[in-house]
Amino acid sequence: MSIYQDIKEQAYRANMQLPKLNLVLFTFGNVSAANREKGVFAIKPSGVPYEELSAEKMVVVDFDGNTVEGDLRPSSDTQTHAVLYKNWEGIQGIVHTHSTFATAWAQAQRAIPIFGTTHADHLTVDVPCAAPMEDDMIKGNYEYETGFQIINHFKQLGLSHQEVEMILVGNHAPFTWGKTADKAVYNSAVLESIAQMAVLTQQINPHAPKLKPSLIEKHYERKHGTGAYYGQK
Amino acid sequence: MSIYQDIKEQAYRANMQLPKLNLVLFTFGNVSAANREKGVFAIKPSGVPYEELSAEKMVVVDFDGNTVEGDLRPSSDTQTHAVLYKNWEGIQGIVHTHSTFATAWAQAQRAIPIFGTTHADHLTVDVPCAAPMEDDMIKGNYEYETGFQIINHFKQLGLSHQEVEMILVGNHAPFTWGKTADKAVYNSAVLESIAQMAVLTQQINPHAPKLKPSLIEKHYERKHGTGAYYGQK
Amino acid sequence: MSIYQDIKEQAYRANMQLPKLNLVLFTFGNVSAANREKGVFAIKPSGVPYEELSAEKMVVVDFDGNTVEGDLRPSSDTQTHAVLYKNWEGIQGIVHTHSTFATAWAQAQRAIPIFGTTHADHLTVDVPCAAPMEDDMIKGNYEYETGFQIINHFKQLGLSHQEVEMILVGNHAPFTWGKTADKAVYNSAVLESIAQMAVLTQQINPHAPKLKPSLIEKHYERKHGTGAYYGQK
Amino acid sequence: MSIYQDIKEQAYRANMQLPKLNLVLFTFGNVSAANREKGVFAIKPSGVPYEELSAEKMVVVDFDGNTVEGDLRPSSDTQTHAVLYKNWEGIQGIVHTHSTFATAWAQAQRAIPIFGTTHADHLTVDVPCAAPMEDDMIKGNYEYETGFQIINHFKQLGLSHQEVEMILVGNHAPFTWGKTADKAVYNSAVLESIAQMAVLTQQINPHAPKLKPSLIEKHYERKHGTGAYYGQK
Repeated sequence: MSIYQDIKEQAYRANMQLPKLNLVLFTFGNVSAANREKGVFAIKPSGVPYEELSAEKMVVVDFDGNTVEGDLRPSSDTQTHAVLYKNWEGIQGIVHTHSTFATAWAQAQRAIPIFGTTHADHLTVDVPCAAPMEDDMIKGNYEYETGFQIINHFKQLGLSHQEVEMILVGNHAPFTWGKTADKAVYNSAVLESIAQMAVLTQQINPHAPKLKPSLIEKHYERKHGTGAYYGQK
Repeated sequence: MSIYQDIKEQAYRANMQLPKLNLVLFTFGNVSAANREKGVFAIKPSGVPYEELSAEKMVVVDFDGNTVEGDLRPSSDTQTHAVLYKNWEGIQGIVHTHSTFATAWAQAQRAIPIFGTTHADHLTVDVPCAAPMEDDMIKGNYEYETGFQIINHFKQLGLSHQEVEMILVGNHAPFTWGKTADKAVYNSAVLESIAQMAVLTQQINPHAPKLKPSLIEKHYERKHGTGAYYGQK
Repeated sequence: MSIYQDIKEQAYRANMQLPKLNLVLFTFGNVSAANREKGVFAIKPSGVPYEELSAEKMVVVDFDGNTVEGDLRPSSDTQTHAVLYKNWEGIQGIVHTHSTFATAWAQAQRAIPIFGTTHADHLTVDVPCAAPMEDDMIKGNYEYETGFQIINHFKQLGLSHQEVEMILVGNHAPFTWGKTADKAVYNSAVLESIAQMAVLTQQINPHAPKLKPSLIEKHYERKHGTGAYYGQK
Repeated sequence: MSIYQDIKEQAYRANMQLPKLNLVLFTFGNVSAANREKGVFAIKPSGVPYEELSAEKMVVVDFDGNTVEGDLRPSSDTQTHAVLYKNWEGIQGIVHTHSTFATAWAQAQRAIPIFGTTHADHLTVDVPCAAPMEDDMIKGNYEYETGFQIINHFKQLGLSHQEVEMILVGNHAPFTWGKTADKAVYNSAVLESIAQMAVLTQQINPHAPKLKPSLIEKHYERKHGTGAYYGQK
């Protein structure tokens, strides 16, 4: 048995959640699960249908994107995952999908306004949308640079990757992350729901105001603050 | 066996209807079932996935929001349920969801116009939308105040909670209620359907008129009037 | 065994298609199947959940709306079915639903423009939308008058109920019919699909033109004309 | 056993994918699988429900549209398939559906703008939309002419059928193709997803720009270029 069995199992199970949550068509998505002590993550092999996946087929890669274990080619987005793990402390799961509503916002190059408490239960700001990359970044090591495009956008906006666990990459699609692969998948599903509600909100009322600061704070705090009272202890 | 077994069973079964009716993502919803003689209600524990629920895990709470039976922490929205049970006679079930279309109307801060007979079969007025709360209410006992925000909006509009069994809380999401937990769940599903049709109606015809009084009256009366002839005797 | 067993079976099976085709929420729909020789039709009992239906529970009613066999109260829309059977030769199945997209067009009080061949494969004109009824018709025998509202709108537009097997009743919802109950259900599903495509078509191109006469004729003829070549002989 | 058993099996299995992928209502779609050496293709019989299909029921037709094997009447769109196989080298599968979002774009007579990388992963240009045919073509051999309408539109735009494997026929619906029937079905599902995202993108931002050339090139190349690194070798 692999010494990476734990993260291979985690990555496998988390990947299999994507079709169940209607977040992917065919193979248009991938999840990774990291072990920070060993400095590696397990990720979906590229272009393999979900029904043919198994924990054994997960590819183990280090934080520089080099394959450590596995016969298959890792996801084409592996370098983006590697850059995020290497630069962002504490995250142990990353998800990339082309889920319908979140991708539509990315294609529209618009951050998703914080319109309600469903949004505020998870983050206190608009869902950020990074600009499409410069041409030289695209022509270079594209997926590697995508990681930096995400990190730089967070720096620009002064956001913490531990408080905001999702982003849209302009013209492309969403990335989410979290302390575990399961949490990152959870964030992808939440993002898709927020994205759908926000389109509808603007259609119902083109002048819909954003949530006011007191409500943003209250909802976020009750789930994530020091006095959080959502969920079990 | 618990002396509250009946409402625990009712609350459990009603909660399990929410994912089947596509009204919740993950744990974003809760149902309670009340026993007015005993002055208590059974409610979903906070943040527990639906697939792990059982009647035994339901938490029994009195109308002041104090836990009477159960090891788990009750839903974070428990105080809202308690306030409604305490102040509104006759209701024995309450549901809160973040269902997509109803929540979008809440985020848009718009009452849902009564556009057709599907709506009129259930209520004779627009689905009310309470304004977001004042900051001091939010910073105080938020969920407790949410109950009063709902009750006060009904007073302002001169509505009866026995005739109108649903409301949107502005920027937040819907609440519904009824004589039983099952009826409250039914109302949540009806509200979601009405909310979706109303968005589409406005998209097809931005000047769509509301239903005229004679049709409103007719459809409501045939289901709910003294000479009602919908359903079995 | 009932002498009406055949139509009771047909009505039962056709009613059970409605939830499978996502055309109803709860009990918001009904199908009837007629036997013209016997001058009766079998229809869903009012307000009975689909999962509790059986052929035995279908109610047999004559073309004046009088119950001939069955212990349950027939659908509240029975009078509308009766009027259509009595006045329109050749139809042996009728469906009423509140399906989402068709109902939205009815609420918008708009006929559905013939935008494409999916529509033209089934009818050569816009899906008609009858105006809401006059107040005296509503206050009188409402469901009975609904039947005449439909028939009169067809007369006004010079339409044949054998060529156009569907209508929207303004502010209310769709009715469809056909030579069999199964065909009427088929028409309800086709209508819902046409209705959804038409909303989207107008959103993509607010100036989308209707299908031109030569294409309308061609598509209708290949399915329904004397030289029809769609389907098996 | 038929000497065409291979393509009959392929066509059968590919047809059965359409309802699973939610691309068809009832029988509104068809897939064919060709054997270029034998100069024939197997196609769905006309108007037969998917649940009654079998490999045996597939109809084998030559590239002039003459039935070679099979008792049933082939799909009414058979001539369109025949023309495409006869004129376009290398394709061995064709799909026609009336899938909701792609058909809405066809009805709107609009090419689908290349808004994002989901689109660019599959083609480098807008999804083309052929104009509705001239009246004399419609009144002639309609389905045969539909094939030429498609081919001529590709010629006009200077497109290669090996690089762009999908088209909308104005007022009608989409056609897709590929090296295998399975690939053609895959393309139909991708098209439907792209079509839905594009409607939403325009609703979110009516001024959404198209993807820039560097990103189009990068995404297409990583899947299809000589240095492609998506999927397994």
